[in-house]
Amino acid sequence: MDSSSPSPDASAAAVPITAHQPAIDLAAERARADFDPAAMHEYLLGGGPERVAAKKLAYTLIERDPVLNFFHSGGHHFDLDRPALREKTMAQIRRAIEIRQTLTDSPADQQLAQWLMVCMCELSESFSMRLFVSDALFARSFRMFGTPAQAREWVPRVLRWETIGCFGMTELGTSSNLRSIATTATFDKRSDAFIVHTPDLMATKVWIGAAGETATHTSCLCRVMLDGVDCGLHWIIVPLRDPESGRLLPGVTAGDIGAKAGRQGLDNGWLQFTHVRVPRTNMLSRWARVLPDGSFESGLASDDPARSQVSSQAAATLSYAGLIPERLEITRGVPMAVNQALTIAIRYAAYRRQGPTGNPPILDYVTVQAALLPSLALMHAVMAADGAVWDRWTRMEADPAELVKGLADMHALSAGIKAMVTWRGSDALELVRRSMGGHAYSKYNAVADAIADFGVMTTGGGDNYVMVQQTVRYLLGQVRKVAKGGKVDKESSVGYLNNLAEVHASLDKPPTHISNWSDLDSLHGHLVRLVVAKTASLAADLQSAAADTGASQADAWNAHLLTVCDLAQLHTATYLSRAFCTRVRTAPVALRPVLHDLCQLYLLDTLARAGKDLMMTSTQWPAQLVHELEAQVVASMRKVRPRAVALVDAFGFPDFVLKSPLAAMDGNGYERYLNMMKSAPGQGFGGVPEYHGREIRPLTAPWTKLGAGNRM
Amino acid sequence: MDSSSPSPDASAAAVPITAHQPAIDLAAERARADFDPAAMHEYLLGGGPERVAAKKLAYTLIERDPVLNFFHSGGHHFDLDRPALREKTMAQIRRAIEIRQTLTDSPADQQLAQWLMVCMCELSESFSMRLFVSDALFARSFRMFGTPAQAREWVPRVLRWETIGCFGMTELGTSSNLRSIATTATFDKRSDAFIVHTPDLMATKVWIGAAGETATHTSCLCRVMLDGVDCGLHWIIVPLRDPESGRLLPGVTAGDIGAKAGRQGLDNGWLQFTHVRVPRTNMLSRWARVLPDGSFESGLASDDPARSQVSSQAAATLSYAGLIPERLEITRGVPMAVNQALTIAIRYAAYRRQGPTGNPPILDYVTVQAALLPSLALMHAVMAADGAVWDRWTRMEADPAELVKGLADMHALSAGIKAMVTWRGSDALELVRRSMGGHAYSKYNAVADAIADFGVMTTGGGDNYVMVQQTVRYLLGQVRKVAKGGKVDKESSVGYLNNLAEVHASLDKPPTHISNWSDLDSLHGHLVRLVVAKTASLAADLQSAAADTGASQADAWNAHLLTVCDLAQLHTATYLSRAFCTRVRTAPVALRPVLHDLCQLYLLDTLARAGKDLMMTSTQWPAQLVHELEAQVVASMRKVRPRAVALVDAFGFPDFVLKSPLAAMDGNGYERYLNMMKSAPGQGFGGVPEYHGREIRPLTAPWTKLGAGNRM
Repeated sequence: MDSSSPSPDASAAAVPITAHQPAIDLAAERARADFDPAAMHEYLLGGGPERVAAKKLAYTLIERDPVLNFFHSGGHHFDLDRPALREKTMAQIRRAIEIRQTLTDSPADQQLAQWLMVCMCELSESFSMRLFVSDALFARSFRMFGTPAQAREWVPRVLRWETIGCFGMTELGTSSNLRSIATTATFDKRSDAFIVHTPDLMATKVWIGAAGETATHTSCLCRVMLDGVDCGLHWIIVPLRDPESGRLLPGVTAGDIGAKAGRQGLDNGWLQFTHVRVPRTNMLSRWARVLPDGSFESGLASDDPARSQVSSQAAATLSYAGLIPERLEITRGVPMAVNQALTIAIRYAAYRRQGPTGNPPILDYVTVQAALLPSLALMHAVMAADGAVWDRWTRMEADPAELVKGLADMHALSAGIKAMVTWRGSDALELVRRSMGGHAYSKYNAVADAIADFGVMTTGGGDNYVMVQQTVRYLLGQVRKVAKGGKVDKESSVGYLNNLAEVHASLDKPPTHISNWSDLDSLHGHLVRLVVAKTASLAADLQSAAADTGASQADAWNAHLLTVCDLAQLHTATYLSRAFCTRVRTAPVALRPVLHDLCQLYLLDTLARAGKDLMMTSTQWPAQLVHELEAQVVASMRKVRPRAVALVDAFGFPDFVLKSPLAAMDGNGYERYLNMMKSAPGQGFGGVPEYHGREIRPLTAPWTKLGAGNRM
Repeated sequence: MDSSSPSPDASAAAVPITAHQPAIDLAAERARADFDPAAMHEYLLGGGPERVAAKKLAYTLIERDPVLNFFHSGGHHFDLDRPALREKTMAQIRRAIEIRQTLTDSPADQQLAQWLMVCMCELSESFSMRLFVSDALFARSFRMFGTPAQAREWVPRVLRWETIGCFGMTELGTSSNLRSIATTATFDKRSDAFIVHTPDLMATKVWIGAAGETATHTSCLCRVMLDGVDCGLHWIIVPLRDPESGRLLPGVTAGDIGAKAGRQGLDNGWLQFTHVRVPRTNMLSRWARVLPDGSFESGLASDDPARSQVSSQAAATLSYAGLIPERLEITRGVPMAVNQALTIAIRYAAYRRQGPTGNPPILDYVTVQAALLPSLALMHAVMAADGAVWDRWTRMEADPAELVKGLADMHALSAGIKAMVTWRGSDALELVRRSMGGHAYSKYNAVADAIADFGVMTTGGGDNYVMVQQTVRYLLGQVRKVAKGGKVDKESSVGYLNNLAEVHASLDKPPTHISNWSDLDSLHGHLVRLVVAKTASLAADLQSAAADTGASQADAWNAHLLTVCDLAQLHTATYLSRAFCTRVRTAPVALRPVLHDLCQLYLLDTLARAGKDLMMTSTQWPAQLVHELEAQVVASMRKVRPRAVALVDAFGFPDFVLKSPLAAMDGNGYERYLNMMKSAPGQGFGGVPEYHGREIRPLTAPWTKLGAGNRM
């Protein structure tokens, strides 16, 4: 990369690149790829050509539809302000739901319905969140916490959006700790109803998606009070707005949260209740219920088919499983956003040059590769893990016995994945931005809004700083169990602990030369050994802190929180790596070398990031070997580099989804980009700004009467 | 920090915190500080009580002024859209310039004028950039590149804003390399004028601040052509708009860049010229000029007072010094933004609890401390370095001989500082956001916009990936010079190289126990040794890459770019550390312990981040010592923790500058925050959204005629 400041020879003439060069460059990149991006696309969609065709049809449906797509007269949709984006997003929802209603029960139609929603979520993060809140969070609260009868009664209406729901959990004073939820639901026997009440300012429900303008109902987390006795937290359905007029119901106070960093199309809101009366039957009663006589009963209801399989005690635990799918959904959203950003940045880097045509495209620079290619490998690892973890969760949801058995592991795993993947996703987007120079600062290249929309992911749905602690507490517990001779489930996230002793023994081995850096199992083994060593060292440190200094357990834990953060992410990496390695073995043969090299990059990069830890925990890793590891990362990026454009092509995002002129499939980006500027609303193209007479002319032409008129 | 997901005992009642608790908490924090924040404030302002009073007066002037301040009926200023922010920012500029004109030449008035602008820059990043473009970049182009006569003619008009300038450097095709600047200025002898021309799309000037709506002139970087001969790049003043009507002049095409990630109040624009004729005398001619006969002359003009001191060759180099102050100004903007964000995050973390009152404020958690306190220490280091580097630059600007002597060092240093400080600043803001949980995602707490505004800093004004290479190339050159027996200027950024041999010898010493982790000189010494070792190892690697593998120099350099990034930042850290250590020695005695502990945290954190490098480059740093180093960082944060609130108080930002209810000085943040939501425009408080009938009712009340009417 050349100097940005002119050195003396900067005066020498050079042949500047033309606006046509990018198309030539992208074509050359595609010509040299050694695999078929269409085959990779089909593989990533997880099915045969009929899935590809169905997704393509969904894209076409959206692209042509004036409500679903972002047609916008007088400028680009990135110029829409908050009110316009609110209406647009709700219109997209309305249209998508209407289309979904017209589709039949046929498998083809059902697949189209599914892809329609997925593609709309790719198109708009605000759409995605609006859909998520009602279709996933709210509807799922009936399935998870409601009786089968409650689910049958409500869910169909919710899926038709006759009932628009929101998830009334967080309060101003709760932070990440639900123990301080203060909204009360006091049972009134006489009227067979709960009286829902917000006692003070701090109990205001805040950040509730769809509560600001649209939701007709909320599933509200309340402290249930029976005759003055606190019976704990339960979900109660509270109607908010009249479905016909949209007006708030009596006793309900609600408003919009106002300006946010991103996701302007979603109406996050706040809620207060003043003695709002709702029927007793609005309490979601799968795991506990209040009887008409005011008595409290816990455990599965007598008519629940799963009752025979789940003990009453397990039932109490299961009632908190509802946050797991929320975390997994958040994780799923990360590649959806990051893969688009990588497509934009990689296409641009493949033709952008620092200066004249003779210079290489910046994607040839190791700094740019390091900003983009490890993230590309990471996203493949995330997609692999996403597939594996949802497979398992789907099995668990279908079988209460499985659910009870796997819950603790899934709870810890989903927390770790949520934290690690959203932190890394956030970093990946910032690296995309930095790799693109100034043009990523324009909203028109889509990355600025992607970053703004993403921002909430690391703290929303469970603050990452809290998530990592859940993961590591579980991990430490499992290590104790195995150390005492216990076994862990091989399928679980800590399956590797079954070889604990063996792994431990290997840590003190003398440094061995790694002859084959391409052996994924060997690299995975190094990662596992690192996690085991770090876990053991954390356990020892915690114990000695208590023993040596008499620190309380809480203080010792606090002093080691930074290690906890690192360890949770490394442990999660073993899960991603395992899932990715499985994919490398099971993918169509033609794709295996490509996936192998991505998986290798993922593993090498993960190990290199932990280079210090490797050296500090094992004699196997002297400085020289870490040095070599770092060189291997560079070599591995060099292998992935020639496939980079084909790999992002394989994600299959159409131009109208990416919305970034510089990333246009055909490479004709510069002209599109400038045209977009020219069509910007307001003073986009040469006009005199409306405020000229008031604010500019008084300075630039102080002699004019008008300019010097009466003003402050 | 407690679990975010409800564990079984989550059902137990707990005493929730009240909205009054934050005020009590902040008062307690302030009571336990062991130093006087007012004294620290005075010290940071760099003068006596009269400077404090002048800045306070400037704040008062701004707070009371309806144009300067962000009064906004019907909502908060974070709700203003782009057109409104454009006008508001220009109105603020107009008002501030008018006030500046009314101030006299007295020292008191001049100090007020200066603080007025500084405080406005603190209040608004868009104001800051609008001011910077004309008052700094454009005006400075006359001082740096113009003859004394040109400066006398233009600068006063620029400072009155009768002439509003913009800096026409970047083109769509230039990226960070000015060699491909393609705008031409062809001299036409007959009319004694240049014909300025944009040959094609890629030569369009883009991202030019103030070009979109306001600038009347641009200093335009053009390739000067004399009789078909390319005479290199020179600055030519091109009029853009009629100062009275604001209309574009003939041949000038310009428009607004449109939607950006942040800084909506600044009109970044694009420019194209079609045979625009400007007088020959509009070429800035300090270092080179075109004579009426069409001949080209380089070197200082004969009437330049510095001519006797500067050789013609040095003059050619000096003509590129103009980017140095730009980089230094960018660096200065970093603490301005980050210190505000730290004030917001630290105050909030000092009263926010995970759950009931018994829990500690989250600032007690090591993760939160690690997210905020090293950044606080870093900003003190940056402010120290900022003072030192401007002192030196001011001396250099005043004395051309000094300028020539120190230019190469200053060029490399300013590049390194710019890169390191903007990268770390960007990271610091993201950590602030993560530390604050969901409420940082609301624009009303000011952090979201701070991040959006800041985004451009890492790539604007010289892409950091390019900057670091300039620094390291210089560093390698200086090491070669010293290795051959040369000396470097002790005052320069590489002064530590004079002890090269000694430092080298120390690297292979056996590990020594560090008995006193509070000894700043010792820590600084470790940092210097690390930089020397890393530089030597990079030089060796580059050489052996060429020798062993026959890689070209460019390829070898490229393969080591990641090391170059790290090294440039570590080298820059030695400069920050030196400046900070000097402050610890020279500050008022009462403040020295406080600054000492911050400096210690800065050094420990810098070394700990480079823990892997320490182990890889020196036998002095075995794993156990790095382990100890990391524990020392935690211990050092614990020392700074009780002073954190007082330290951010000492920055002295008034509430109206911070604009963040949760950071209100008095701690009464929750109520203010909710009130801000209630006053959000549109559907802020319980109304029915305007689009309800069109987009919501068709779903929620499909039986209503109106809802099911004719629509798509």
